Amino acid sequence: MPAAEAGPTFVTEREAGLACSGRRCPLDRALAFEAMVEQVLAEGNGMTQGHVSHFADRLAEAVERKRSQLVVGLDPVPEQLPDELRSEERAAAFAGFCRGIVDAVAPFAVAVKPQSAFFEAIWPAGAAAYAQVCDDARAAGLLVIADAKRGDIGSTAGAYAAAFVEPRDGGPPLADAVTVSPYLGRDSLDPFLAACRSWGAGLFCLVKTSNPGSGDLQDVRLSEGTLLWQHVAQLVGDWGDDLIGASGLSAVGAVVGATYPREVAEARRLLPHAIFLLPGVGAQGGRPADLAPAFTAGRASGLVAASRSVIYAFRRTGGDWRASAADEASRLAREVWAVSTP
Amino acid sequence: MPAAEAGPTFVTEREAGLACSGRRCPLDRALAFEAMVEQVLAEGNGMTQGHVSHFADRLAEAVERKRSQLVVGLDPVPEQLPDELRSEERAAAFAGFCRGIVDAVAPFAVAVKPQSAFFEAIWPAGAAAYAQVCDDARAAGLLVIADAKRGDIGSTAGAYAAAFVEPRDGGPPLADAVTVSPYLGRDSLDPFLAACRSWGAGLFCLVKTSNPGSGDLQDVRLSEGTLLWQHVAQLVGDWGDDLIGASGLSAVGAVVGATYPREVAEARRLLPHAIFLLPGVGAQGGRPADLAPAFTAGRASGLVAASRSVIYAFRRTGGDWRASAADEASRLAREVWAVSTP
Repeated sequence: MPAAEAGPTFVTEREAGLACSGRRCPLDRALAFEAMVEQVLAEGNGMTQGHVSHFADRLAEAVERKRSQLVVGLDPVPEQLPDELRSEERAAAFAGFCRGIVDAVAPFAVAVKPQSAFFEAIWPAGAAAYAQVCDDARAAGLLVIADAKRGDIGSTAGAYAAAFVEPRDGGPPLADAVTVSPYLGRDSLDPFLAACRSWGAGLFCLVKTSNPGSGDLQDVRLSEGTLLWQHVAQLVGDWGDDLIGASGLSAVGAVVGATYPREVAEARRLLPHAIFLLPGVGAQGGRPADLAPAFTAGRASGLVAASRSVIYAFRRTGGDWRASAADEASRLAREVWAVSTP
Repeated sequence: MPAAEAGPTFVTEREAGLACSGRRCPLDRALAFEAMVEQVLAEGNGMTQGHVSHFADRLAEAVERKRSQLVVGLDPVPEQLPDELRSEERAAAFAGFCRGIVDAVAPFAVAVKPQSAFFEAIWPAGAAAYAQVCDDARAAGLLVIADAKRGDIGSTAGAYAAAFVEPRDGGPPLADAVTVSPYLGRDSLDPFLAACRSWGAGLFCLVKTSNPGSGDLQDVRLSEGTLLWQHVAQLVGDWGDDLIGASGLSAVGAVVGATYPREVAEARRLLPHAIFLLPGVGAQGGRPADLAPAFTAGRASGLVAASRSVIYAFRRTGGDWRASAADEASRLAREVWAVSTP
């Protein structure tokens, strides 16, 4: 894949200005960002709509460049924050904490996954903080996967797509990709699929989730003999079949819990072109060593998502919270990379 | 059910002050609100935590008092707004439009159902507008059903429950009830069920949705012979079994599309204690006349949700948008009431 296709889809001049505004900004990141900004500004406007690149291709480029398939989940919870941030107003504390984590893990992760729920819990201020976190992550050269698990019908689904993966007010989309729920069926995902086509968005559809209760629905057996989650996997494959990029991977990925390694292997058989978002490593007990089957469709075909074990690493290790997060991200990224080696 | 148990769970002094602050305020609503406020203030504080009432009982009281099972969906879309609001900033226009609709339909509806997606599409300002709309609806004596269709695991589900149906910053919850998705199973709903117990919240779990594509998952046949949505209905019955109020109805309700009348009747057989939220009347083609089976568990056991056909009625009728919405709400409420008569 030519290097010129890499990098985020949209870059506004405002973002370019933000990139190094008083924040820790490693040289390589600054240089990569500068090159991207030059390319964008050469187009004569603040947005590269004419150069929308495929989500999976952007991701595959980042995976190779960073030698990482790590996605760091941003799950800010007031009572878990470092002491130095607890006196701040909650939305400011969330944004500050996430910015610190973003800067710390940017060299080791390909993406962050800010969890909308924690920001919604402190609405309305939380909404601005969420947008800020997404901006900060993009400015740090990370892809952004909005963890929102949305699913609704018709025009409502269109509004959710607009909220998360379509350009907003002439600026870039909030996120590169968003997690979605399949319960309402194909037409509920149409607006998101359109955003994949028009704006280079990515989707991760819930297939087999990492929680203990996932079996209540997902493991029921259908009359045709398969389990429900396998039926959903087949649908996800159909939905993403015409959205396969140059990397060989589809813009429509699947959420498969790292806590269920046997299902990960089976899902890969059913979904040869899907990127798997694999949550549940760390605090939930999933182990990278069990995830090799996820990567048989390519280095970028699996993304290992870890949240609490990275962002709250300082609670185990002591010391600076940013340094602890960086260390854990680095360690985990190397561990996963080794597993993904063919 | 004693009348003293009726009325919203929480009333802050601020809300009491807001009730008639420069807005159209019909006398009967003002008097009802005043009585409620007096009751609350008699407790010596601004919040009635000690008197949390069951969601279904609050609803049943409102249904009898208003002789209505109408829920008006608030789906603001910039291009559909009345001309007089189009020049305003979008979040202000959304809040102003919804306030006008809330005031217009308050005598005829028991609840409003603000759709989170449309407000998220204009984040971050939209988040404050959403909270304002919920406040306005409560001040107008309406129950609030947040249409959000959330579903996630563990601590994330807890954050969503906190966002929608738990008290916020010493004030009331954003909404009386919230729509949720069942795909992740029982443990994903536990925090919401806890909010039903502790804070008198209500849930409406997706069972059989109104859209054409709902069959992709919901109508697959299980090996035991039932369809998936019927399995989900049974789960919803189990989840709500220990949350049945004095009205005989559970705090855990079900979303069943009014576009599928046969399924409505079948769902009632499976769920004798659930309140059905029945979207799809009006713009989507569902007809009140087909919904009689929803009401066989009582007058309050079915809520007919109409959105576009009510809030954008002025586009068909011409004239004042508030008056058109009021007329359509009044007409529809009477039509549904007649259908619900045993």
